[in-house]
Amino acid sequence: MDVPQYIEANRERFFADLKEWLAIPSISGDPAHHGDVRRSAEWFAAHLRDIGFPTVEVWETAGLPAVFAEWPAADPAAPSVVVYGHHDVQPVEPLGEWETDPFTPLEKGDRLIGRGTSDDKGQVFFHTLGVQANMAASGAPAPPVTVKLLVEGEEESGSLHFPELLRTHRDRLACDAIVISDTSMWSEDVPSMCTGMRGLTEAEVSLYGPESDLHSGSFGGAVPNPLHAMAALLAALHDADGRVTLPGFYDDVLPLTGEERELFARLPFDEAEWLRTAGGSRAPYGEKGFTTLERVWARPTAEINGMWGGHTGPGGKTIVPREAHAKISFRLVAGQDPAKVQESFRTWVQRNTPPGIRADIVTGGAVRACFSPIGSASVQAAKRAMEKAFGQEVLFTREGGSGPEADLADILEAPLVFVGLGLDSDRIHAPNEKAEMPLLLKGAEAAAYLWDEFATALRTA
Amino acid sequence: MDVPQYIEANRERFFADLKEWLAIPSISGDPAHHGDVRRSAEWFAAHLRDIGFPTVEVWETAGLPAVFAEWPAADPAAPSVVVYGHHDVQPVEPLGEWETDPFTPLEKGDRLIGRGTSDDKGQVFFHTLGVQANMAASGAPAPPVTVKLLVEGEEESGSLHFPELLRTHRDRLACDAIVISDTSMWSEDVPSMCTGMRGLTEAEVSLYGPESDLHSGSFGGAVPNPLHAMAALLAALHDADGRVTLPGFYDDVLPLTGEERELFARLPFDEAEWLRTAGGSRAPYGEKGFTTLERVWARPTAEINGMWGGHTGPGGKTIVPREAHAKISFRLVAGQDPAKVQESFRTWVQRNTPPGIRADIVTGGAVRACFSPIGSASVQAAKRAMEKAFGQEVLFTREGGSGPEADLADILEAPLVFVGLGLDSDRIHAPNEKAEMPLLLKGAEAAAYLWDEFATALRTA
Repeated sequence: MDVPQYIEANRERFFADLKEWLAIPSISGDPAHHGDVRRSAEWFAAHLRDIGFPTVEVWETAGLPAVFAEWPAADPAAPSVVVYGHHDVQPVEPLGEWETDPFTPLEKGDRLIGRGTSDDKGQVFFHTLGVQANMAASGAPAPPVTVKLLVEGEEESGSLHFPELLRTHRDRLACDAIVISDTSMWSEDVPSMCTGMRGLTEAEVSLYGPESDLHSGSFGGAVPNPLHAMAALLAALHDADGRVTLPGFYDDVLPLTGEERELFARLPFDEAEWLRTAGGSRAPYGEKGFTTLERVWARPTAEINGMWGGHTGPGGKTIVPREAHAKISFRLVAGQDPAKVQESFRTWVQRNTPPGIRADIVTGGAVRACFSPIGSASVQAAKRAMEKAFGQEVLFTREGGSGPEADLADILEAPLVFVGLGLDSDRIHAPNEKAEMPLLLKGAEAAAYLWDEFATALRTA
Repeated sequence: MDVPQYIEANRERFFADLKEWLAIPSISGDPAHHGDVRRSAEWFAAHLRDIGFPTVEVWETAGLPAVFAEWPAADPAAPSVVVYGHHDVQPVEPLGEWETDPFTPLEKGDRLIGRGTSDDKGQVFFHTLGVQANMAASGAPAPPVTVKLLVEGEEESGSLHFPELLRTHRDRLACDAIVISDTSMWSEDVPSMCTGMRGLTEAEVSLYGPESDLHSGSFGGAVPNPLHAMAALLAALHDADGRVTLPGFYDDVLPLTGEERELFARLPFDEAEWLRTAGGSRAPYGEKGFTTLERVWARPTAEINGMWGGHTGPGGKTIVPREAHAKISFRLVAGQDPAKVQESFRTWVQRNTPPGIRADIVTGGAVRACFSPIGSASVQAAKRAMEKAFGQEVLFTREGGSGPEADLADILEAPLVFVGLGLDSDRIHAPNEKAEMPLLLKGAEAAAYLWDEFATALRTA
C-alpha cells in the first residue's frame, strides 16, 4: 500500500477524528474556555496514544498546556525532527456571521468549515495521518527519522510561556530540523513554501518641552514645540527613497539572492488585488528598488504605529504643547539583531532631538527574523516532498510578520522548514474559517514523504 | 486745579467706587453669574450717569450686556474717540489660593487685590476719573474730544456677540481713534504702549490611508502610512531657518522698521527669566534673524497644537494606522490676510500629500492682526500723554495674542491706540489678581491728558 492509497483508505476516519477535536472550543484568549484548552490537549494526547506514538505527554506551562509526542526512528543515528503547531484557537465573535456553529464542523463540498480547521488543528492533524501513511508504505514499525510533535496551547494568546517551555525541555526537543505547519501557500493552484518571517522590535519616544502647555500667542514661535520636533524626527526616519535612515540599519541585512527574487517574481501577483486586501490602499509605497512582495517579505521597515500630543479633542486650542509621543516598530529581516537596532534608534533619537527638547526612549520586544535559505538541505528535502505530493513545482514565499517561530530556531538551534498548507482565503481569525479538505490530505501526503526525504538529506548534510 | 491735584483730591472716592464695582462677581464664563454680569453693567451705567455722562445706555446682545456712554465735545468738529474695555471677569477657582475673597477687594500696601482689579474693571475705571480730571483742569463743561466708552460683558468668554454689537451700533460708534485699555506695560519702571497684536487662523488636517488599520507585518513597508505622511508634511512646514514654508506666507508681512527694532531692543529683556516664564523652556527657538521679542510680537508662526493617530494607549500595537490628524494654528502679523493663509495652506497640504493618501483640511477662525504704526498721529499723541503722566520716556511693545481688538479696528475703521497700564505680574486670570493703585492713578492722569493731545493731533491729522 503506497502513501496515496493509505490516505485514501483512511480519509473518513481522519476527518471523523479531526471533527471530534475541532468540537472542543479551545479558545486560549478567553479564560472561560481555559478548561476546554486543557480538554483539547488531553483529547489530542489520547489520540496520539491510540495511533501508536510510543511517548505522549501533556506539558504544563505557567499558562495552558502543550502536547509533546515522540516516535523514535529505529536507527538511533537517524535525524530528529520537531513538528510545531498549536491546538488553541481564536475567539469566534461575531457568532451571527457563521454559517454553522463554529465548533460543530460542517462539510460543504470540499470545504470543512469550523474554528481551527485551518489555524491550526487541521494542519497539525495531517501530520498524524502522514506519519501513519509513511509507515504503512514502508512496512516499518517506526518512521525513518525520529518525529517529535510539539503542539502548544497559547499561540493565539501570544505564546507567552512558550520560550520557557522550550528552555525547560530543550534536551528532549533536540533536533536537526523544525517543521512549522502553521502558514499558508500562495494559492490552491500554486503550492509554495514559506522561507522566512520578519522579526520585530518596538520603541516609544517621548519628547518634552515646556513644563506645561503654553499660550501660543504669548510664546509661539520663540520656544521649541515638541510636536514640531516629533514631526521632524519621524520624517527624518526615512529618506526620499523610502529607506530607513538609522545609521547601520542595513549593514547586517542578508540581501535577497537573485534566485529568490526570480522565484518571487514567478508568483502570479496581482498588485491591484493586493491593494484591495490592504484595506483599499490607493497606491503602493516603499523602499525604492524592490517589489511589493520583496518589501513586505524581505526588507526591514520602520513604521509609526501611533503618535499623539497636545490638544486632540474637538475645537481649537492655541497652545505650544508640553510633550509629544510616538510608538514605532521595526520589522527586521535575516541578519539583523533587534538589540542593535534598538541601540541605534536610541542614539539616533538623542542625536536628532533639537536643543530645548528632552527625549525619553523606551524600547521593547525583540523578535529575530526567521529564515531558511532556499538552497539548504532541509528546505530542498521539504520541497521534494511537497512536489511529490502536488505533482508540480513548488515556489517560495515569505511572511511579513512573526509568531513564536524565531524562539524555536533560537532556543533549539535548528533550521526551520515551513510546511504549511493553509490558504489566505481560509478566513483564519474570522467567521466561517475553513480548510480545503483535499489540501489537508495533500498535507498528510507531503508529511509522509517528508520523513523519507529528511532521513536522507539530513543524515548526509 | 490741575490734573494731578484733581486726581489726588479724588483718589479715596475713586477707590471706594471701584471697590463697589469689583464686589459684583461678573463672571461671564459661569451661567450662574450671568445675573451678576447684568448687575455689573447696570452699576457701571448708574455710576457714569452720576459723574455726568450725558448719554449712558446698557446695550443688549444675544448674550451679556455692554455699557455705552458718550460725552460729546462742545465743538461739533472735534474728533471722536471710542474707549474699549470690559466689565466681565474670569472665574476665581481655585478659591483656596486667594488671600482674600476675590470679590471683597483688599488693599495691601500699594496693591489692590481682587478679581477684575487689573483685568479689566480697574483699567476701565481710570477713564472715569481721567475725563473728570480733564474737565476740572480745563474748567470746561465737556472734554475737548467726544469720548465714547464701550465696555463689553463677554470678553472673558470669547466676545462671541461683540462683532454683531459693533455692526449694530456702527454709526453711534463712529470715531477717529479707538483707545484700548486692556493691556500691560513692560514693567512698573518701564512704561510702554502696545502697538500691535498678532492675528490667528486655524486648521485641522486629516490624512487617510487604508480603510482600516493594517497588520504591519503583512503590509508594513509596502503601503503609505498616514502617520509617516503627517510627520513629513508637518516637518516640511518649516525650513532649517525656522521659517514657514507656505508659498507666499511672508509676502504681505509688514516688516519691522529699524526704529521699532531699535526701540524693542531698548527694553530690558532677560532671556533666562523669560524662558522660566515660558514653562521652563530650555532654549529659545524660532525664525533665524529675529530676537525672541520680535519672534513673539512681530513675526508670523505656524504651530502644531495637537497631533494624533494610530495606537495611543498602553503597550504596542503593530499596525499601519488608517488615519492621522493634526491641529495647526497660524499667528499672523500686520499685512497678512487670514483667508489667504488658509487658502495657501489648503493648496500646500494637497500638493504635499503623497500618492495613496487622501487629505481633508478644515480651516476656521480668522482674526486679523492689529497694528498701530509708532509714527502715527494717534500713537504719538497717546505717547505724549503717557510721558506727561509718567515723567519719563515711554517705549513700545506688542502682544503675541489677540482679543476682540481686530474687530474694533475692522468694523469701526479707525486706528487702535493701546493705553493699558496692567503689569505681567498682575496675575490676571489667576488667584490673587491685583492692580498697583499708583498705576491706576497714573492711568487716570494719562487718560486726562490724552483728550487734549487727541483734540490737537487728530484734528490736524
